Amino acid sequence: MSDFDFRAYLTERQAVVNQQLETILESLGTQRELTRAMGHSLMAGGKRLRPILCLAACEACGKDPAHALAPASALEMVHTYSLIHDDLPAMDDDDLRRGIPTCHRAFSEATAILAGDGLLTHAFQVLTRPGNLFTLLPDPAVRLELTAILSEAAGVNGMIEGQMLDMLSQEQEATALPSSLDRLEKIHRLKTGKMIQASVLSGAVSANADPAMQEHLAVYADKLGLAFQVKDDILDVEGDTAVMGKPAGSDEANHKMTYPALMGLEPSKRYAETLVNDAVDALAFFDEKALPLRAIAAYILQRRR
Amino acid sequence: MSDFDFRAYLTERQAVVNQQLETILESLGTQRELTRAMGHSLMAGGKRLRPILCLAACEACGKDPAHALAPASALEMVHTYSLIHDDLPAMDDDDLRRGIPTCHRAFSEATAILAGDGLLTHAFQVLTRPGNLFTLLPDPAVRLELTAILSEAAGVNGMIEGQMLDMLSQEQEATALPSSLDRLEKIHRLKTGKMIQASVLSGAVSANADPAMQEHLAVYADKLGLAFQVKDDILDVEGDTAVMGKPAGSDEANHKMTYPALMGLEPSKRYAETLVNDAVDALAFFDEKALPLRAIAAYILQRRR
Repeated sequence: MSDFDFRAYLTERQAVVNQQLETILESLGTQRELTRAMGHSLMAGGKRLRPILCLAACEACGKDPAHALAPASALEMVHTYSLIHDDLPAMDDDDLRRGIPTCHRAFSEATAILAGDGLLTHAFQVLTRPGNLFTLLPDPAVRLELTAILSEAAGVNGMIEGQMLDMLSQEQEATALPSSLDRLEKIHRLKTGKMIQASVLSGAVSANADPAMQEHLAVYADKLGLAFQVKDDILDVEGDTAVMGKPAGSDEANHKMTYPALMGLEPSKRYAETLVNDAVDALAFFDEKALPLRAIAAYILQRRR
Repeated sequence: MSDFDFRAYLTERQAVVNQQLETILESLGTQRELTRAMGHSLMAGGKRLRPILCLAACEACGKDPAHALAPASALEMVHTYSLIHDDLPAMDDDDLRRGIPTCHRAFSEATAILAGDGLLTHAFQVLTRPGNLFTLLPDPAVRLELTAILSEAAGVNGMIEGQMLDMLSQEQEATALPSSLDRLEKIHRLKTGKMIQASVLSGAVSANADPAMQEHLAVYADKLGLAFQVKDDILDVEGDTAVMGKPAGSDEANHKMTYPALMGLEPSKRYAETLVNDAVDALAFFDEKALPLRAIAAYILQRRR
């Protein structure tokens, strides 16, 4: 891995994803209040972890990652919609996201609800009517499968149920520790994990990967998704508000169940490391085209935001 | 049409649609807070106009309407999501819908936002992974097209933009009358019309209808959608709160642009009649299998809620 420049790779891929998302926004017209609100959140400088995972998985399975740009874009649109709705006053009531005002702060609550709805709905339009937005595309049968994967991961047996359980668990007092850790893991698998799995799987499916490849990547994605969340909780304890673009310490203030709160800070760090090692081990099946996936796993541990 | 019992037809079709929606809800588990909230609004006794239009269009094009049950269900789920979000405090702030408390009143605002998100997202799961929920299904290529039709009609160039413009026009004072009528028609074409068109088109596409059939049905759906909205505005002036399940007179109280306010009550009634006649004329191309579509157009004028 010594000759692989991950920083350069990440910067290049973020630029590719940002360019594609800009193209999608421009196709909708940027002067409308609705699309301005969608663009405010979509172009707020996210890490683009999900689309980059999707492109890297496609690459690992031996196909030009450009084939996966449509699902990659759709995944980031759905992720952004979930942030907009989670930030709403009726939900987490957050004022800052990615260093700028949340959508309902910059526009209005009603506009933010509709901007979220719009990003979610248009993600399916991007997958089903990609038109001339993309140079390379998966064939129609694969696009139907990608739509199925996205609606399952984002849906009532995935991300939405995760947010619902997270909300309910904040309302109820946390009970005994062992059951709470199970519950925490369940919430994260639903709330973040399913979409991370969908990102990796969508890349593989776009590359027409065989079932063995898909199975190994599923293990990678499961471990990576959990590691990502454990690290998120650690950052909330140790992180720097200015670097993260959102207030550190907010989990504790909101009495949120977190890994550091439930298992301690040092054990949480060791757990994150174990998960990342397991994720990388699951890639043993792949050749050097999986270098970016390996580097992404390492980055999950090192990131400061 | 004399030997066609429309009341019996409507009752039977509503039962078929309700049964299918129940099956979908049961497949998600009915004990969860999220699915209970989704079911609260989905099974609140709506007219089922969109799914019934979808089934009737499939029938008019010569195919067993059971082929269109998946898109019919998805259309009603998306329609219900839009009602849940439109009723939210940040939007229209309504307490009653279909005679029972709105979703955010019966549950919570956060739960209602997620229940809406869930219905929207799961509609795409119903179209793409219909599993063993349906006995007859359109083939995969047609299902991809149905997903495209639904996400376009419900999206940022359809229903969501219509709701956005409706909201903005309530904030701004209505300006001169001629431009307001154009604006009103534009809002309705987006907010209600696109989904009504998608309902009819989805039925036709599920029946593998040829382009000529689709063109005639597009005219029918366009006229019908506008007639439906004009009648809605008339009902808000003349209707009975108990029959409608929502307060009459609320448009005037909210200073909403309506057809009666802009063109007068009697001209609005004549306009609705003309639109329905135009809709029925567009069906001249079809044989007696289009009887239900003709009867639905007549029903739009006569309905009391």
